[in-house]
Order: sequence, then C-alpha cells, then structure tokens
Amino acid sequence: MVGRAEEQAMRTAIAASEQVRGTTSPNPPVGCVVLAADGEVVGVGATQPPGGPHAEVVALRAAGERARGGTAVVTLEPCSHTGRTPPCTDALRSAGIARVVHAASDPNPQAAGGAEVLRAAGVDVHSGFLVDEAARGPLRAWLHFARTGRPHVTWKYAATLDGRSAAADGTSKWISSAESRAEVHRFRAQVDAIIAGTGTVLADDPQLTARTPDGALLARQPLRVVVGDREIPRAAKVFDDAAETIQLPGGDPAAVLAALADRGVVDVLLEGGPRLAGAFIAAGCVDRVLAYVAPLLLGAGPAALGEAGVGSISEAWRLTVEETTMSGPDVRISAVPLDGRPGAEGR
Amino acid sequence: MVGRAEEQAMRTAIAASEQVRGTTSPNPPVGCVVLAADGEVVGVGATQPPGGPHAEVVALRAAGERARGGTAVVTLEPCSHTGRTPPCTDALRSAGIARVVHAASDPNPQAAGGAEVLRAAGVDVHSGFLVDEAARGPLRAWLHFARTGRPHVTWKYAATLDGRSAAADGTSKWISSAESRAEVHRFRAQVDAIIAGTGTVLADDPQLTARTPDGALLARQPLRVVVGDREIPRAAKVFDDAAETIQLPGGDPAAVLAALADRGVVDVLLEGGPRLAGAFIAAGCVDRVLAYVAPLLLGAGPAALGEAGVGSISEAWRLTVEETTMSGPDVRISAVPLDGRPGAEGR
Repeated sequence: MVGRAEEQAMRTAIAASEQVRGTTSPNPPVGCVVLAADGEVVGVGATQPPGGPHAEVVALRAAGERARGGTAVVTLEPCSHTGRTPPCTDALRSAGIARVVHAASDPNPQAAGGAEVLRAAGVDVHSGFLVDEAARGPLRAWLHFARTGRPHVTWKYAATLDGRSAAADGTSKWISSAESRAEVHRFRAQVDAIIAGTGTVLADDPQLTARTPDGALLARQPLRVVVGDREIPRAAKVFDDAAETIQLPGGDPAAVLAALADRGVVDVLLEGGPRLAGAFIAAGCVDRVLAYVAPLLLGAGPAALGEAGVGSISEAWRLTVEETTMSGPDVRISAVPLDGRPGAEGR
Repeated sequence: MVGRAEEQAMRTAIAASEQVRGTTSPNPPVGCVVLAADGEVVGVGATQPPGGPHAEVVALRAAGERARGGTAVVTLEPCSHTGRTPPCTDALRSAGIARVVHAASDPNPQAAGGAEVLRAAGVDVHSGFLVDEAARGPLRAWLHFARTGRPHVTWKYAATLDGRSAAADGTSKWISSAESRAEVHRFRAQVDAIIAGTGTVLADDPQLTARTPDGALLARQPLRVVVGDREIPRAAKVFDDAAETIQLPGGDPAAVLAALADRGVVDVLLEGGPRLAGAFIAAGCVDRVLAYVAPLLLGAGPAALGEAGVGSISEAWRLTVEETTMSGPDVRISAVPLDGRPGAEGR
C-alpha cells in the first residue's frame, strides 16, 4: 500500500528529476523526496551532474536528522554499487530511512539489486510505484540506454498537413509555429546530442543550438553531431563556439550511435534531413517519432522522410501513437515503434 | 435566460437532427424538442425527407395538447415561409407554444424572419442559444450552402505520418485503420454526394458507396460523382446499381459544385485523388479538411495532395485545426481554412 502523501511525493520527485534532464548523462536523471516519520516533506533532491551526489543523497542532506524513521520516495531503484559516488543504499541506511518507495527498477546489472539490499537490511521497500510515469518521462532515454547500450533516438520533424517539409522552391522556414519552435529549443536543451546530416548543414547552415525565442542561447547546449562524409566549411554556424561539434563520417546509424554511446551520450535528437532520417528508420535506430504537423497545405515540395527501405504497404514501419497534443496551432504527435524498435515484429 | 431543462432539450434536439443528416437536403437537418408548461419533454422531432414535415411539426404532433403554454427548443430559427410545407411559425402558434428557444438563425432571406414573426405574435423568443454546437455540427453544411449558394466540401484523405497516401509500388489499401475506414463509411452515408476524379476511378475502381465493415450497403447512399473527361468503362464499380452515379466533364471545381447545387446537393465529400484535391484547394473550394493520419512510415510513395498552386511557404494555404481525435490507432485531424475559405485572407 502506498499512501496519499507518498503518491504526492512521487509526483514531486518526478517533477524534480524533469528539472535536471540533460545534465546527468551518463547517469540517470533521478528525483527523490524524503518524508519524515510523520509524513512531512523534509527533503527534495535530484541527481547532480556526473561526479556530484545522486538524488537520494541530495534529499537526505536536506532532511538531516528528520529522515530517521522516515520514507524515501525515489523515481528509480536506489543503486547499491560504488561508482563515482558511494552506493545510495548505504546513504539511506545510515540516515535511518525505514521505508523506500521507488518507481522504475534499475535494468543495469552492475547497479541493480538495491531494493534487495535494502530489504535484507530491514527496510520496507515498495517497488514499481507510478513506474509508467517515471519510465515514459524523465527516465525514458536512460532506461533505454541501460537496456540496449544504445542512446535513445527521437526523430523530430515538422511537416504540413499534406506531409511536406518544405515548399516547391525549397523554402522551409516557419513551417511550424513559434510555439512549436520554442518547444523544440527547450527539448534541445534537455538532450545530450543533436544529429543532422551534412546535406542539411550544407543546405541550411543551421546553428543546431538551444535558444530562446529572441535568439539567446539557453544555459545548456547539446553536443552537435554532423553525420556524413561531405566537408563542412569552417565558417558554418555549427562550428561557432556556442557548443561543441563533432563530425562523424560514414553515416551508418548503428556506428554513429555506438560512437555517441562511447562519449556518454544517452539521449539524442535526430533533426534530419530526409535522407538521414530514412537511414535511421531503415536501420531500426529510431525510438520515438515526434511530428509537428502544421495546418498548412502546400501540394508540392519534399517530404520529411526519404527512402527507408519500404516498397509496399505491408512493409511499412508501424508505430503506435503515444500522445497527441496541440502546440500552438500545430498538432504534435508522439509515436513509438509498435514493438519498441522498428524492424523486428512491426514489419 | 435559458433554463437547465431547455439546455438539455437543445442537446436532445441536436442529437435528433444528427440522426437525419443526409436525408433532408436541400432542407436543413433540424431537431426540435417540445417542453410542456411544466418543463416535461412531450415531443421530439427531426426534419423528415423533402416534402415531409419539418422538425417542429413532428415534435408538435407528438406533444399534442400538452404543447399549449409550452416551449419549443429548435436547432434553427423556425421558418416563416410556405415551401413544400406551411410555415413552422404558424404551426407553433396554432399549437399554443408560449416560448421558442432556437440556436442558429436562418441566413436564407426567403425563410428568415421567423423569430420576428413569432415575437410579433406574442411568443417569447430566445435566439442564438448553443449556436456554435448546432452550427458546427449537423447544420454546418446547410448553413454554408444557405450563405454561399455552394455545397459544403469536406476533403477527406488518409496518409501516413510522413505524408504518403500510397507506397512506392502504388499499394494504398489499408493505410488507415479498420476503425477509420468504418468511420468514413458512416460519414459517406451522411453526405449528399461523394466526388472522385476519373484518374482515381480508373486506377482503383472504387465502389464509392457507404458500407458496413463486412461490406453490406448502408441504408443511405450518396450520389456518386466522377469528375473529369476520361471515359469510365461501363463495367466499373461506380456504375453498379448500389447508388446513382453521374460523370461531370471538365473538372473546374466551381462548375462542378454549381452543377451539384442545381441537383440539391448541400454536403459533399471529396475523396481524391491528389490532382483533383489540388484543383479544389487551389480554387478555394474546400471548406474542411479531414485527415486520417496513420502511424506508419513509408519514406516513399505519392502524397495525398497534388499541385495546388503554391510555390513558396508564404503562399501556403493556411488552416486552423478544429479538432484532433483518435480513430482507432490513427490521428484524425479536422481543419478549416483560416478565413472560412481558402484563397482569401489566409494566403
């Protein structure tokens, strides 16, 4: 049984972890709330940047002596291994926590088992509480990375109602609304890396940074990744000093993702163009599609997605719509491969 | 002031009119509820097919003597002119109705003025109640026809998330889900006519009828309209005896709609293909876009909309999304031109 105060605490923990998304990789963005024995919130914490304390430790420090006999509500199973910081299970026991309620379990064999360690030490542990909210939300990319060893890839695109990503004359700016563009910039600030192909970089000279609507850089910038063999001029905006940029030659999606995983990149935003998106789709390397559908009709112009190895309807990549929301005047559709990964059963 | 019983009655009247959509053209599908003096529902009616009684008369007949001193709640302003049936204003007065609450006003100069006639006769009239629900719902096409003299055109299409209406090999069946297909068939049964181009008829040999999921014909069938000059073989399915079919040569959308208006067609479903849809969009002859977006990715294949006279983004046809709903696994987007008609301000 999980009480009302604990449910409220878990929602607070999820919200706290949302705030640190993008700052914790390769560690998970975790949130923790400590309730005193009488149910009062005495500590809220979220994972600090790599090398810094985990969420549990931040929340326990805030709680101090009031943690004794209390409950820790955490979005992820507390770790029981020593990495750059000591195990959180030790910290919880030392603080005298009597009960732990956590959402997702840790799929990482090195770090998992925290719940068992705590139970063996006499702590009352409740696992899997509100796991869908935590696992679909802030922990999504990290859980995917922990399970597969591969960064989580969101392919984002904007298109008109009739599926065009640009007009016949090539003009593509402002297909989506100001609201959608602002949302994409906030999303960029939460991922570890943005990928674009050399074709798009040469054609559009994008900066690939996270900016406010008036063009100022947001506090956090993702790694900029240019994929492909064509040479990019040094004067291109992606080479300005707003953020780090790397170019990965070749263009095999699995190789690109392996190289990024080696750099601790967990959460990736794939921004196009159509050829690169097609290659990622065809390779089964897209974990989520985020489409901004603008209420415009063009009747001509290129499509958002290029060749993806599909010849007939029966071979189409099948997804399931997770969520549909309005983003200003645009319809934002979030969809995931039917089987969790295109290319397997979904075909 | 409109009371709670009257609000409930208006919702019942709208629902009753929804049931007769497609059976009343060129008359409007109207709903009416008669409340006795004590507020009890004593009659519910909807417009009968042309030549038959209007909604008010049907509801009054059901109410009988209990209408005296009561209220008539109607989705449209009662008519005050003699057409194929006598004026409803007379019927309401003869029945002793003391109050009339109606939603939309009648934009037709011949029939309008009913509210004034009733007021002059001492009836308490409340106009414009829940007008948006009635005007966007069952009365939509008829109000558009009454204002413009042109049938209301809904362009319906199905496409994948990446905007394809067929695969590279031309296979297009089952892009949208069983749920969406069933919904389209129910929608077909509510319109007066379905339009398709000769190209689509020659390529796909569609039957263009309203059917149940197991293929049986629904009770009502729209007029089938084939637009274009190419000859359709007599053996084509559109020429079976399931419904009436006409072919309109040329292909100028305004001329097509004028010919249909002459036949009493008020509500039209435009089903494609891309060339005909492009011509209708370019001519400003689409009043609503109904997109079934299926969660599939193809990466190749034709788009749903062909050439629509747009060269650059600034010339795009701009719409506003009215509603987004799920239809089984598909996202159904209903959008209308920004200014009520493409081609004017929206550009």
